[in-house]
Amino acid sequence: MGPVAVATYKRFVYERGGALDRSQRPHQDFCFDNKINTMCGGVSVAAAHVSSSSSNSRVGSAEGGKKVINLDHGDPTMYEEYWRRVGEKSTIAIRGWESMSYFSDAENLCWFLEPELAKQIARLHGLVGNAVTRDRHIVVGTGSTQLFQAVLYALSSPPPPPHPSHHHPISVVSATPYYSSYPSMTDYLKSGLYKWDGDAYAFNKDEPYIEFVTSPNNPDGFIRQPVVNRSGGTVVYDLAYYWPQYTPITSLSDHDLMLFTVSKSTGHAGTRIGWALVKDKEVARKMTEFIVLNTIGVSKDSQLRAAKILQVISDSCEYLAYPEDLESFFNYAYFQMTDRWERLRDAVRCSGLFSVPEFLPQFCNYIGGFTEPHPAFAWLKCEGDIQDCESFLRENNIITRSGKHFGMEAKYVRISMLDRNEIFNLFTERLSNISL
Amino acid sequence: MGPVAVATYKRFVYERGGALDRSQRPHQDFCFDNKINTMCGGVSVAAAHVSSSSSNSRVGSAEGGKKVINLDHGDPTMYEEYWRRVGEKSTIAIRGWESMSYFSDAENLCWFLEPELAKQIARLHGLVGNAVTRDRHIVVGTGSTQLFQAVLYALSSPPPPPHPSHHHPISVVSATPYYSSYPSMTDYLKSGLYKWDGDAYAFNKDEPYIEFVTSPNNPDGFIRQPVVNRSGGTVVYDLAYYWPQYTPITSLSDHDLMLFTVSKSTGHAGTRIGWALVKDKEVARKMTEFIVLNTIGVSKDSQLRAAKILQVISDSCEYLAYPEDLESFFNYAYFQMTDRWERLRDAVRCSGLFSVPEFLPQFCNYIGGFTEPHPAFAWLKCEGDIQDCESFLRENNIITRSGKHFGMEAKYVRISMLDRNEIFNLFTERLSNISL
Repeated sequence: MGPVAVATYKRFVYERGGALDRSQRPHQDFCFDNKINTMCGGVSVAAAHVSSSSSNSRVGSAEGGKKVINLDHGDPTMYEEYWRRVGEKSTIAIRGWESMSYFSDAENLCWFLEPELAKQIARLHGLVGNAVTRDRHIVVGTGSTQLFQAVLYALSSPPPPPHPSHHHPISVVSATPYYSSYPSMTDYLKSGLYKWDGDAYAFNKDEPYIEFVTSPNNPDGFIRQPVVNRSGGTVVYDLAYYWPQYTPITSLSDHDLMLFTVSKSTGHAGTRIGWALVKDKEVARKMTEFIVLNTIGVSKDSQLRAAKILQVISDSCEYLAYPEDLESFFNYAYFQMTDRWERLRDAVRCSGLFSVPEFLPQFCNYIGGFTEPHPAFAWLKCEGDIQDCESFLRENNIITRSGKHFGMEAKYVRISMLDRNEIFNLFTERLSNISL
Repeated sequence: MGPVAVATYKRFVYERGGALDRSQRPHQDFCFDNKINTMCGGVSVAAAHVSSSSSNSRVGSAEGGKKVINLDHGDPTMYEEYWRRVGEKSTIAIRGWESMSYFSDAENLCWFLEPELAKQIARLHGLVGNAVTRDRHIVVGTGSTQLFQAVLYALSSPPPPPHPSHHHPISVVSATPYYSSYPSMTDYLKSGLYKWDGDAYAFNKDEPYIEFVTSPNNPDGFIRQPVVNRSGGTVVYDLAYYWPQYTPITSLSDHDLMLFTVSKSTGHAGTRIGWALVKDKEVARKMTEFIVLNTIGVSKDSQLRAAKILQVISDSCEYLAYPEDLESFFNYAYFQMTDRWERLRDAVRCSGLFSVPEFLPQFCNYIGGFTEPHPAFAWLKCEGDIQDCESFLRENNIITRSGKHFGMEAKYVRISMLDRNEIFNLFTERLSNISL
């Protein structure tokens, strides 16, 4: 953000008395009048909003009560609305004879990384201030899922002689509640190089290990630090959600190994692009080697598209001061998430059967003021006697992911906060009406 | 091909007396006058052609003699020229708000497969007649490299109870000379599910196994059949090169497991799209599971681009009878490969130090006449006393891949036949001049 932009943004947040007053939002055309949950119910009002709020409506008013709402995956379709407003500026055109070679930049250590994507990654991190890119190798991956495995390979495959070989398989840990896919992504091939060893809090072996620190955390949204802190370990930061719409940007991340992805930052999950910022050259080289063995590089088409999307976001941030131009992506997304979390908390209060985490505001260097976290997932707990929250919500035609998959009790579920408006409306409406 | 198209095509091939007379080619604007090797040398002539034959020239006349020619990878940049001629018809435009979700077709077993790609895959196979698609599941992958691994996972991961567990790790074999990446793609994660067991000719264990049959074969271009033929085995057909430009289409492949890729069929290696045609539903489901665990699906951008490219190729085949329209892709590629193989054989004769495989013509159902194989790689052998062909060619600034990587002697090397014209020109010119 430029200084004028920051001032404008601050004015939005603070001249309104610090509260996010929906009726006075600066860009009303991006906002939806979602008062549906403030009165604990209001089916007919909700239904009217559902049918008018999006051209992509999957849920009609008539079927609203029994329609299955699937919030198991974190499919970030919420962002479609923003990109529709952006219009043709975000279009990428690739001609038949372009990007045909396996190679993008033969001189680069990561030879399949498109230079334009590398440039836009560095630019966006520079603008947001969430991660250091200087003196880092960028390794692009087919989503951060592939990069997760590239990291495991890089940190566990035998080094060239005369270095001593690692102890094998190396333990891979993460503190509960951890991302539900970590165990299966680690163990599905029964690798002799690494194995899932569960909750980092319980790890006490005197052996090398790899600890994944997801911050903000998936599923619960809290900022995290490493918990093992023993010698012989390597910490990998999964920063997929370290963006201003989800959490205050409190510091410039400066870790040795950091993973990011477009799916959660910009909403382009179908594009399958992630990137790693890697300090150590040998680790970056080994990660690149993994991606060559796994998929011989990463789709150029998607890299070019991701570069365009990141460029539009950076442009939108830099030109925020011009009200006739595009609204800042992070401004839009921040207000969306704020609104959704308010409505979720309203629904939780109305029902009386659930709880969600409480977060303290912190100073966000990007926004230039105190903001509250608004995670991409709600980590919902069934209070009282309900032991299996997933089954309970399933009976109400809401599909969520049980806490069991995250190394926790079944009283918890993870719920995506990033689905399309009409789905989210229906979800909060239904949640607020659930009773025993 | 329609009947008129076939007749036209046949006339090209047979009215010229069966020989491919370069001076009388039907589409001169797609052809390059490559007489440079017919006189065993001719550096200045070659250099003039090099500098004028392409706007992408990487090799100037002055540096032609010492420029390193890298033909190690099978980078299919030869096809750029065709796609440039196609022009804007082959352009794909993706708008910012399109294809954002993880899902392409939630009802499909392979839920991340774009329906348009599935449609174009079936259409092209139908036109070419190289593989059955009816009653097959299509599984899309990030190149056939990912599909290779998806197959290994699908055939080796434990089945659900009450089925007995497989013997682990399952042996993976392929007859020598086999694709040089098979051993490393199988063993890089030291999986407990499967392991590379080398040459299929040498496999004699009384255990389950997976045999890869690459046909036409990489590196030597020959049509292949399974060689183990024991009980408990599964045969997987890698048909990346089973297209009319490389080999006569003698039959409609009707195997249980067949792999294809755009990189070698259309030249779009940077797009990273492959597909499997799978008869067994459970195998297709497990392959899909692998791809979800490995990369959570396959780039939609690339799938849409691949669909467009396949559509243009099918259109070009169906409309071949209209001379004002686009030349058939396979027509263009077939003549290019024919020309290149003639020139390679000329160069080999001129030098006197090497040999390449000889192939018999066979009836091609697609072309409707007898054609000779023109493989995507030349499997070159150093004759006489030269034991290490890769090193010998390296001394002449030609980078190739040693036969050792394919399970064979170092007297062999694999050479890509698909590089850009100016590189291929320089290569054949240099090869023809090599002497002891």
